[in-house]
Amino acid sequence: MILYYAPGACSQASHIALVEAGLPYKLVRVGRDKQTEDGRDFWTINPKGYTPALELDDGTILTENLVILAYIAQLTGKLLPEDGLVRWRALEATEFMTTEIHVNFRPFFFNAPQPEKDKARQMLDRRFATIAGQLDDKPFLVSDRMTISDPYLFVMLSWAAMFGIDVPERLSHYLARMRTEPSVAKALAEEGLAAT
Amino acid sequence: MILYYAPGACSQASHIALVEAGLPYKLVRVGRDKQTEDGRDFWTINPKGYTPALELDDGTILTENLVILAYIAQLTGKLLPEDGLVRWRALEATEFMTTEIHVNFRPFFFNAPQPEKDKARQMLDRRFATIAGQLDDKPFLVSDRMTISDPYLFVMLSWAAMFGIDVPERLSHYLARMRTEPSVAKALAEEGLAAT
Repeated sequence: MILYYAPGACSQASHIALVEAGLPYKLVRVGRDKQTEDGRDFWTINPKGYTPALELDDGTILTENLVILAYIAQLTGKLLPEDGLVRWRALEATEFMTTEIHVNFRPFFFNAPQPEKDKARQMLDRRFATIAGQLDDKPFLVSDRMTISDPYLFVMLSWAAMFGIDVPERLSHYLARMRTEPSVAKALAEEGLAAT
Repeated sequence: MILYYAPGACSQASHIALVEAGLPYKLVRVGRDKQTEDGRDFWTINPKGYTPALELDDGTILTENLVILAYIAQLTGKLLPEDGLVRWRALEATEFMTTEIHVNFRPFFFNAPQPEKDKARQMLDRRFATIAGQLDDKPFLVSDRMTISDPYLFVMLSWAAMFGIDVPERLSHYLARMRTEPSVAKALAEEGLAAT
């Protein structure tokens, strides 16, 4: 499998999951100019133009982070139980992050006018408070073991730190702890991002 | 099971799926004031404050539309194959609609300043073009049979029509055809919305 990624982008969640699940993979970096590091036009690989994209061995391209995460889990039996409440809570938390947290970083990435940023920051405060309540004192977001929701939360918290957005202390501790997970440390190193 | 919904909201996708899957359900309407029709504070049912929420028979509350749709599918074996490419394409299309289409309606629902609406409309044009390409000449979005992506697309196209946002002709025809599906017609009637 080939993961098309951009360093530090949300594709990092899929990257961490591939490492954590123990799957063999090849990485291909996509630049801001939508050229891959091996000189191809990324628009021809994913016409939606964004990472992550996962190329299966038969050439099929899967897109959308949540779907790639769920695919990795189904293939390996790791990171997402096949049934039971942890499955649904992990999917629920991941979906919540894609629709309620990730999207509120767009005004910061695209340097939108200040009122849009202010509105987004208010929403992020509320949404991270919900996540902090869900984490409680557990080592991982929905369970004692890592699920697909954890790599995603890790990336969201990394973005919050990058943009100077405060999060509840419990989430700061979680971020620091996640950086020491072997799968996270390996993914960061492979993306050329030293854990700090 | 109890579906907490708001008429015409994205909860309608879960409502259609419940009908289509043949599950027994009870509906509880949630008003704009976050009071349920039976006089309860919806914030105590879903602390995130939005519909849909699905109350299982043991009292568990599931949230997030994509997750409720996937849960209904897993429970009944309908609307989403257990494996194979149609499964992943249906999840992918549903996730794409939640993160790339649904969110771009927010400026219209919340009557944001015109530049925000203009930007959102441009994105909607691009995203609906992608969906129209995926639909092609098929009766449903990813397959010859209805999947979880179809009720969601139906709601997104209903919103586009409500806000006067043009969509490719192929999607207008799809919307008209979906309105004649028995499950869609039943859900619309139960929400007090006559198919027009």
